[in-house]
Amino acid sequence: MDFLYTNLIYLIPVFGLIGIAVMAIKAAWVTKQDAGDGDMAQLAGYIADGAMAFLRAEWKVLSYFVVVAGILLAYSGTTVHTSSPVIAISFVVGAFLSAFAGFLGMRIATKANVRTTQAARTSLAQALKVSFTGGTVMGLGVAGLAIIGLGSLFIVFYTIYVKNTGGDVNGEAMAKALDVLAGFSLGAESIALFARVGGGIYTKAADVGADLVGKVEAGIPEDDVRNPATIADNVGDNVGDVAGMGADLFGSYVATMLATMVLGREIVSHDNFGGIAPILLPMVIAGLGLIFSIVGAAFVKIKKETDSVQKALNIGNWASIILTAIATYFLVNWILPDQSFHMLRDEIAGSPGLLKEGSIEFTKMGVFGAIAVGLVVGTLMSMITEYYTAMGKRPVLGIIRQSSTGHATNIIAGLAVGMESTVMPILVLASGIYGSYYFAGLYGVAIAAAGMMATTAMQLSIDAFGPIADNAGGIAEMSRLPEEVRHRTDNLDAVGNTTAATGKGFAIASAALTSLALFAAFVGVAGIEHIDIYKANVLAGLFVGGMIPFIFSSLCISAVGRAAMAMVEEVRRQFREIPGIMEYKAKPEYEKCVAISTKASIREMVAPGLIALITPIIVGFIFGPEVLGGLLAGVTVSGVLMGIFQSNAGGAWDNAKKSFEKGVEINGEMYYKKSEPHKASVTGDTVGDPFKDTSGPSMNILIKLMSIVSLVIAPHLHKELNHSPRLQREIHIRSMVMPAKPEVKHKI
Amino acid sequence: MDFLYTNLIYLIPVFGLIGIAVMAIKAAWVTKQDAGDGDMAQLAGYIADGAMAFLRAEWKVLSYFVVVAGILLAYSGTTVHTSSPVIAISFVVGAFLSAFAGFLGMRIATKANVRTTQAARTSLAQALKVSFTGGTVMGLGVAGLAIIGLGSLFIVFYTIYVKNTGGDVNGEAMAKALDVLAGFSLGAESIALFARVGGGIYTKAADVGADLVGKVEAGIPEDDVRNPATIADNVGDNVGDVAGMGADLFGSYVATMLATMVLGREIVSHDNFGGIAPILLPMVIAGLGLIFSIVGAAFVKIKKETDSVQKALNIGNWASIILTAIATYFLVNWILPDQSFHMLRDEIAGSPGLLKEGSIEFTKMGVFGAIAVGLVVGTLMSMITEYYTAMGKRPVLGIIRQSSTGHATNIIAGLAVGMESTVMPILVLASGIYGSYYFAGLYGVAIAAAGMMATTAMQLSIDAFGPIADNAGGIAEMSRLPEEVRHRTDNLDAVGNTTAATGKGFAIASAALTSLALFAAFVGVAGIEHIDIYKANVLAGLFVGGMIPFIFSSLCISAVGRAAMAMVEEVRRQFREIPGIMEYKAKPEYEKCVAISTKASIREMVAPGLIALITPIIVGFIFGPEVLGGLLAGVTVSGVLMGIFQSNAGGAWDNAKKSFEKGVEINGEMYYKKSEPHKASVTGDTVGDPFKDTSGPSMNILIKLMSIVSLVIAPHLHKELNHSPRLQREIHIRSMVMPAKPEVKHKI
Repeated sequence: MDFLYTNLIYLIPVFGLIGIAVMAIKAAWVTKQDAGDGDMAQLAGYIADGAMAFLRAEWKVLSYFVVVAGILLAYSGTTVHTSSPVIAISFVVGAFLSAFAGFLGMRIATKANVRTTQAARTSLAQALKVSFTGGTVMGLGVAGLAIIGLGSLFIVFYTIYVKNTGGDVNGEAMAKALDVLAGFSLGAESIALFARVGGGIYTKAADVGADLVGKVEAGIPEDDVRNPATIADNVGDNVGDVAGMGADLFGSYVATMLATMVLGREIVSHDNFGGIAPILLPMVIAGLGLIFSIVGAAFVKIKKETDSVQKALNIGNWASIILTAIATYFLVNWILPDQSFHMLRDEIAGSPGLLKEGSIEFTKMGVFGAIAVGLVVGTLMSMITEYYTAMGKRPVLGIIRQSSTGHATNIIAGLAVGMESTVMPILVLASGIYGSYYFAGLYGVAIAAAGMMATTAMQLSIDAFGPIADNAGGIAEMSRLPEEVRHRTDNLDAVGNTTAATGKGFAIASAALTSLALFAAFVGVAGIEHIDIYKANVLAGLFVGGMIPFIFSSLCISAVGRAAMAMVEEVRRQFREIPGIMEYKAKPEYEKCVAISTKASIREMVAPGLIALITPIIVGFIFGPEVLGGLLAGVTVSGVLMGIFQSNAGGAWDNAKKSFEKGVEINGEMYYKKSEPHKASVTGDTVGDPFKDTSGPSMNILIKLMSIVSLVIAPHLHKELNHSPRLQREIHIRSMVMPAKPEVKHKI
Repeated sequence: MDFLYTNLIYLIPVFGLIGIAVMAIKAAWVTKQDAGDGDMAQLAGYIADGAMAFLRAEWKVLSYFVVVAGILLAYSGTTVHTSSPVIAISFVVGAFLSAFAGFLGMRIATKANVRTTQAARTSLAQALKVSFTGGTVMGLGVAGLAIIGLGSLFIVFYTIYVKNTGGDVNGEAMAKALDVLAGFSLGAESIALFARVGGGIYTKAADVGADLVGKVEAGIPEDDVRNPATIADNVGDNVGDVAGMGADLFGSYVATMLATMVLGREIVSHDNFGGIAPILLPMVIAGLGLIFSIVGAAFVKIKKETDSVQKALNIGNWASIILTAIATYFLVNWILPDQSFHMLRDEIAGSPGLLKEGSIEFTKMGVFGAIAVGLVVGTLMSMITEYYTAMGKRPVLGIIRQSSTGHATNIIAGLAVGMESTVMPILVLASGIYGSYYFAGLYGVAIAAAGMMATTAMQLSIDAFGPIADNAGGIAEMSRLPEEVRHRTDNLDAVGNTTAATGKGFAIASAALTSLALFAAFVGVAGIEHIDIYKANVLAGLFVGGMIPFIFSSLCISAVGRAAMAMVEEVRRQFREIPGIMEYKAKPEYEKCVAISTKASIREMVAPGLIALITPIIVGFIFGPEVLGGLLAGVTVSGVLMGIFQSNAGGAWDNAKKSFEKGVEINGEMYYKKSEPHKASVTGDTVGDPFKDTSGPSMNILIKLMSIVSLVIAPHLHKELNHSPRLQREIHIRSMVMPAKPEVKHKI
């Protein structure tokens, strides 16, 4: 035990290294699978090249951004004593690891896709094995790199700023270590934003463009090799759903741990770990979650063609969640002392131990309770999302019924479903906030998010499996492989659609809790006591914050609309000017379509990205931290709502359209593909595409990034660290006259 | 002067009586105009009957509601000493007057429509005169009844509770008078909600249903007499746009005055009006605005066929605004003393005159400054709305361009425009909050809203003119009158579309400021000091509040979708089962369609209405006033955003469609009606219909009603009025130990 007491901190990156080692083994296994015949390899090559071309173009732009932002951060680190120019280094490391995680995932996904197609020639079991192992590489890579990066940097900064200086683990020394560490999260989240938005625009411009001309005008099926935009469409699945989603969850994962650590600093803990158990806890939970994700992944297998793929994934997912929950119970019991805790900010100034009215005191079992709340919230959010987007349930059936009266009523029905679908998630989230706060105060809100994110590796494995299967189906179709192959990949793809929807529910819930944790951390670091929306300027901030997800969404979806139009025109041109495409005699110029998507996505990701980065800085420095707090609250509430609304409307439209493939009954009549109601449902699906894959999921990163930017600038906004001489005097006078408010200590 | 000093309070209802007298003269003038031939009279009769049938059905349901709510209010009035069972009487009076104002407006609108058609046979000038005079009857009726009602009840309650008891005009006596008066606003706003939602569902169910079968399937023009749903469609214009809009503005007008009065009670004013000048001010401003609206209306006339109708309306509008602004300057100067003011709640407890840090002190010129801010906000909001919805501007042109690639891209473009259109209004609104608070604190925010609403009579005249002209065109079409008649009514109708859009911008801005004023009033009455979103439960309230506009919108638009489908099926049935309709040989069964709209709207208005009414009560009593404050902030922010988004998207889609009538150029090619892009634009317009006429404008009332309900229950939530014995002791202890915080007095 003594060894662990001293060295637990060094164990954290080891968890990450284990993850990376397992990842390497799995990656090698995938690589050595059969990649099929020459045709398939060529198509897969196009997709892989297109994906790398996008990444290179994106990285070029982002490298400028990272350099400029790094310099600014380094400078700003010199201006307050609780920060340091070293923050620029963590920023660059965070940005690099996030981009690297995306690269790893995409690299393996563009290998696993064609190998899954080839495996599907033999059996469904083998196809699942290849595609899910590909997903696991992504999941373990993201989680492993995150833990290694955050864990190692924490060891370094803790050693430099706290251990070597003999500084207070609850005081400014640790605050400085964590502030510098926040740069890592900022770097990760910035890259995530551009990856999510850029990838989202890429994939939907290609998808919408390909559908509008291919399916609607030319009457050829999806993923037909004759469609010039089909390669771009398949590249899009990789850059949007794999790299984008990976960067998103990498960001959430890191931000959640960081926020919990920042709040953990404010807890005085007489533990065996030098008083930093509350700070270490979220990282150790993440480490355990990573290990149990590896265990859970082993459960994901089927034997027969008729076995349920969804069930196999569910078993793996539940195994990892339940094992992690049990392990966390023992961990919390072991790592935290038996005393009761409170946040330092809840103490009445000048009277240590005396708490302000309404403050929360909690025990280690409270902390476990909060983690349990986080797990329940995550599970419920996924279930609700599934209900609103699954085939055969009331919401999707309603959209199908309203497709019978045309395009417009289909759209109205989908919008109504999307708006309605905010109700239950918001009630769950509000109860989650209330519950986790009840159990362990603000630290509880943060650790609930950390609990929810613990099995990120497993979640992401499942998420990444979907686009790999989707791509595998595309390659099967393009290579005109036998019906049974496409049938097997379709089976996997259908499951992938469901996991994509539930994954989005999970992602938005985690983003919401993460943002709230960051919000709480921000308040502490900025040194404000209230965010009082009764004040006119804070209320104005709330309004402006609420508006940002609207303009952000508008920019994203209109970018998709514009890029899709350019794509449509290019495809029309190729059909017109290249004779023989339709008869498989001439090859379309795939690379032109890839270039259109790449260029559009890189160009269009800049404006929304800058809004997210710059708004908090402007508002914070001009109007102060409390107004910035109002802004953040507005962004978070409105962003969560818009995210749920758009993701679920898009998912429901998609499955309403898919339902027509098997035939649907409306008022006693059967309708199939190519019927008028089906055409209406295709319109809905097309509108839903940018909703569910561009703007909707970008909301997660928007709210997290704005919170993390605020947290990073918080020390600069701190009143007592940055006072004018006059203000300083006043503060001094006030603290002399009112040494201690003798308020009654309360426990809720 | 002495006479005015004593009797100003009695002059207020006199303003209203003048308005009603002028209204009566104008109504008589409209009635005695020529109503055209037998055919026209018959059609107009159908419309008038349908409208009255709806009102009767609506009143029946609402009378139950008024009785039940009245009894509950009367009971609740007995439970705290700052309220009284008399509140039930004000509630009933408010509800009755609101319904009566809607009745008056609809009565005259269903007379003016056919008389406008008849007048259009001679000249555009005469047609404008009849239709605008019809609108003026509505405008003056609403404003007149509101001022008479609120003014007289205030006289009664002021006399009973303050004057006769010798009570403190800044204390509990006046608080009681105003609390009882709040019942009037609650009654008005409740009826408004049902009228707006019910009317909105009615009109769009009929409109969408008529369009889907008539225009799209049967290929007959809008307002064709062969379409069984056409009468219902024309009835809808009256019940939605006339009665609904009238009740909405009646509610805003009253609520704004009331909120300002409640805040005005907290201002100690050494004036010549017994210290109640800040309370009287909003009512006197409204009275002046009513008089100058009568003056402005006289400017609305044209001489030649080629004169601009829009310009005539603008001149009238500007005349009334500028005259009111000038008069208000002198009024404020005369009625308010020269001292500087502050809100009582800003004083440090126990130290009269010493203000809390950050509080605002202001002078009478500050009050005028705040009013000016309100006028500027209202004007800018209308201008921005016009930009986003007008033909030939970038937003609408973008939608037109994206119609060329199909239904889906048209929808995406419209949604993007709607979301983008929130940016400028929110920045204007946020600046308005900031600015009016800067000039005169919370009282400034309220009086800014009052200034904006002063010329409600004129605004509403312009708003009501639109649907009258629309109906006139419908009657012309149905009666198959000569081309030139329809041409004149189309001219009026086009202007009406613009005024409808700008009117909505104005309505949402006024609702937002009114809600904030009510919000501030609520905080005072509930006796809370902060609404701190940094607290977990308040933040949870903010989330739940933000969600309510989404579920409310969802209920509204899916109600329209369902009712429109029922309408479509009925119209299809009539075309199928009644032979000869298409050849004008058989008359469709109009009344069946009218019945469908009526039944659907009455049934579907209940659920959203109850959400708005009951949520604040549940949250307030279970979680307390601060959480309720968070809820209100969430509702207001999200409601304003959703209102602007939906109204503007709908308006832009509408005008994109209309642009095709004259022909539009896309990529060098001209497209007209019946082209593929035009069909896509019709889809957009149909989706936009419930957005802009049902859910969008309902947001105004939702946010106002929830605030007013909160204000009415606020005395019951007041901690120190409703304490448990334990709490009471603690408060006592606290106030003994901390008699006065010696904080520095600040002026911003």
